Amino acid sequence: MYEGAIQDLIDALGRLPGIGPKSAQRIAFHILQADPEIARALVDSIRTVKERVKFCVICGNVSEEDECRICRDPRRENTSICVVEESKDVIAIERTREFRGKYHVLGGAISPIDGVGPEQLRIRELMVRLGDLQVKEVILATDPNLEGEATATYLARMIKALDIKVSRLASGLPVGGDLEYADEITLGRAFEGRRSV
Amino acid sequence: MYEGAIQDLIDALGRLPGIGPKSAQRIAFHILQADPEIARALVDSIRTVKERVKFCVICGNVSEEDECRICRDPRRENTSICVVEESKDVIAIERTREFRGKYHVLGGAISPIDGVGPEQLRIRELMVRLGDLQVKEVILATDPNLEGEATATYLARMIKALDIKVSRLASGLPVGGDLEYADEITLGRAFEGRRSV
Repeated sequence: MYEGAIQDLIDALGRLPGIGPKSAQRIAFHILQADPEIARALVDSIRTVKERVKFCVICGNVSEEDECRICRDPRRENTSICVVEESKDVIAIERTREFRGKYHVLGGAISPIDGVGPEQLRIRELMVRLGDLQVKEVILATDPNLEGEATATYLARMIKALDIKVSRLASGLPVGGDLEYADEITLGRAFEGRRSV
Repeated sequence: MYEGAIQDLIDALGRLPGIGPKSAQRIAFHILQADPEIARALVDSIRTVKERVKFCVICGNVSEEDECRICRDPRRENTSICVVEESKDVIAIERTREFRGKYHVLGGAISPIDGVGPEQLRIRELMVRLGDLQVKEVILATDPNLEGEATATYLARMIKALDIKVSRLASGLPVGGDLEYADEITLGRAFEGRRSV
């Protein structure tokens, strides 16, 4: 145990996700010995995030305005909505440059074990948006794991009732991967989703 | 790329040691969604460390006073000094409860590749302390790697000239380890340093 302040910093850092006691100690000493400018930049950026960043009133993505950059963009199509779990997923999909529609961020996935039911997610907000007649297709891009699949199944049933096309991202072999090392479920999905060439 | 503030925070976090882009993103979203109290505690602890924590004028260990807790403690013996590279090493040795003397923190090890020579370390301060006739033994507890060994060899030569006993921490098999998995240098050292039972 260190004296007062440095131990407090180690403790505060150790509470962040993915930072163990050794990393916390290493980072604390880095901050201690670093240029005061570096510590100030870190402090300012934490405060600015807490003060300025909020969630888009339409899609739930992170934003510094009431409406996020994508929802504000008139070039984005209103006819398709891609439903994701988290803001991070929006960035991942944006990087592909494959999608020109709008997003809807649920804020998680249905997971009874963690006490997350449909009412904890932004599903009601999604259904309100779908009331808008413009939407022709909803792409369910929740994670390809148990919780993500359950959420997609739940949403698909509700959205189909509105007579809107619903699709799910394809599962299969990752590009650049090795067939031999694919797990059997992924390989099974790749067979199931095979396309004629 | 995210909008403004959240990306600034991801960048600031990504500059900390051992935090890659994915962890930086994960921590930034954690801070964004966490209770404001948690962000405030982190900000305050960073600022307090930068404002209050300094280095002991005697031994170079981290301290909130001019002299650190160990240097101030009258129960610690003045007859032996344990020389370490960093403050972290002081904590590691304190945990063993094997040492009742004082410390001297060098602030690193001799490493020509990183441009660290003896003059960049707190070696002059150590020699001044050894001028005090009370010191009977210096324990060199620099890391058992190339730089640490070089530093120990350098110091040993200087300190022996003052007619003070110099020792080095034992190298050998880690307790609870498996002989089969020991590297040959460690195993060689363990042979070299064998003790009669």
